[in-house]
Amino acid sequence: MEKKETKEIKEISQAVIGRLPRYFRYLGDLKDEGVERISSQELSERMKVTASQIRQDLNNFGGFGQQGYGYNVEYLHVEIGKILGLDTEHRMVLIGAGNLGQALVNYTNFEKRSFLFKGIFDNNPALYGKLIRNFPVMPMEEMCDFVRENQIDIAVIAIPKEGAVKVAEQLVNCGIKAIWNFSHVDLNVPEDVQVENAHLSDSLMKLSYNIGRYNKENGVKQ
Amino acid sequence: MEKKETKEIKEISQAVIGRLPRYFRYLGDLKDEGVERISSQELSERMKVTASQIRQDLNNFGGFGQQGYGYNVEYLHVEIGKILGLDTEHRMVLIGAGNLGQALVNYTNFEKRSFLFKGIFDNNPALYGKLIRNFPVMPMEEMCDFVRENQIDIAVIAIPKEGAVKVAEQLVNCGIKAIWNFSHVDLNVPEDVQVENAHLSDSLMKLSYNIGRYNKENGVKQ
Repeated sequence: MEKKETKEIKEISQAVIGRLPRYFRYLGDLKDEGVERISSQELSERMKVTASQIRQDLNNFGGFGQQGYGYNVEYLHVEIGKILGLDTEHRMVLIGAGNLGQALVNYTNFEKRSFLFKGIFDNNPALYGKLIRNFPVMPMEEMCDFVRENQIDIAVIAIPKEGAVKVAEQLVNCGIKAIWNFSHVDLNVPEDVQVENAHLSDSLMKLSYNIGRYNKENGVKQ
Repeated sequence: MEKKETKEIKEISQAVIGRLPRYFRYLGDLKDEGVERISSQELSERMKVTASQIRQDLNNFGGFGQQGYGYNVEYLHVEIGKILGLDTEHRMVLIGAGNLGQALVNYTNFEKRSFLFKGIFDNNPALYGKLIRNFPVMPMEEMCDFVRENQIDIAVIAIPKEGAVKVAEQLVNCGIKAIWNFSHVDLNVPEDVQVENAHLSDSLMKLSYNIGRYNKENGVKQ
């Protein structure tokens, strides 16, 4: 049983994985609305993807649906949550107590999905002891011991790019196996460390490109 | 000449576009380091993509390189910037003056790339007049006039998901043609409005999935 699951998950492409959080989000909204079952056709109209895409994506995980009967919303929501690892508690530290870092710690939705901040670190002495939510900002020197003693599995890096590569190296040396990187630089970590980049500037540049493309294609003056 | 450019840009896939900000970033770093020319091989080693991928990507825009002589770093940086629309000034409003919104306004790197915040709006009267950088928070009722009078082309939405769909509709009615969406919901806008989603929770869930996959593949107990 366990072996089968491993095999199934290995075969799933990152493209499908990239779409799963969106399914999870829509199913959560449907659940909140009290919807118990939904057909791939109805889900397709809501999500603006083809019903065939939905069936293909969900078939990667064994289907969940019954022909002509639709999907059980709550069951599918829970199962996709499990696939995404949301049934496992994740313990996080924040590196960088600036505006962005504070926004992340204050965003309580992460907790609902079992991502719990446990400690905050910064290299600015003026911030030491300052409370962000209930967490006092601690000096970087204490980061490594804290990570080890508190079974931290995710480090969130939200510092200027100049220091980020070095901090990532330190975190890896402390045993961190997953980094959520908001610093505007690519990290250089071993293959067994998972990194998810959230490069906000890159996202804004894509928007800028698409504005320009639309304007050129439609003869809009800028 | 102009027609040719339009045609070239139309043919470029979103996958290539998605990689351009990263080229732009690396070339900027090289420029800062004083590097004048770089071969696709050297760039490949830095960026950890194949040299052939780099050549293919850059060929989409007419090449820029000379066989055996490498790329002119500054020229390539400027040209990719132009393709990304960074030679055009973008005037932005922020909707939602919470932690995340404040972080975005305070992030001065956007300005260096010609993305300028011009106004901040919120529906919380307690925030009206509060200065974030030099901008007073204004009531939502003033948003539409402000957008029209100040030639705003990008709206940044950073409010809870409950209000985001309605605010996006209002913005579209005021003439906004581009939205950078941080709210955890998909917006429903006409086709001529460009939307770039920055769904932070989706990014965190992808990280969580990859942690789980790695652990399963390598027999790591969670």
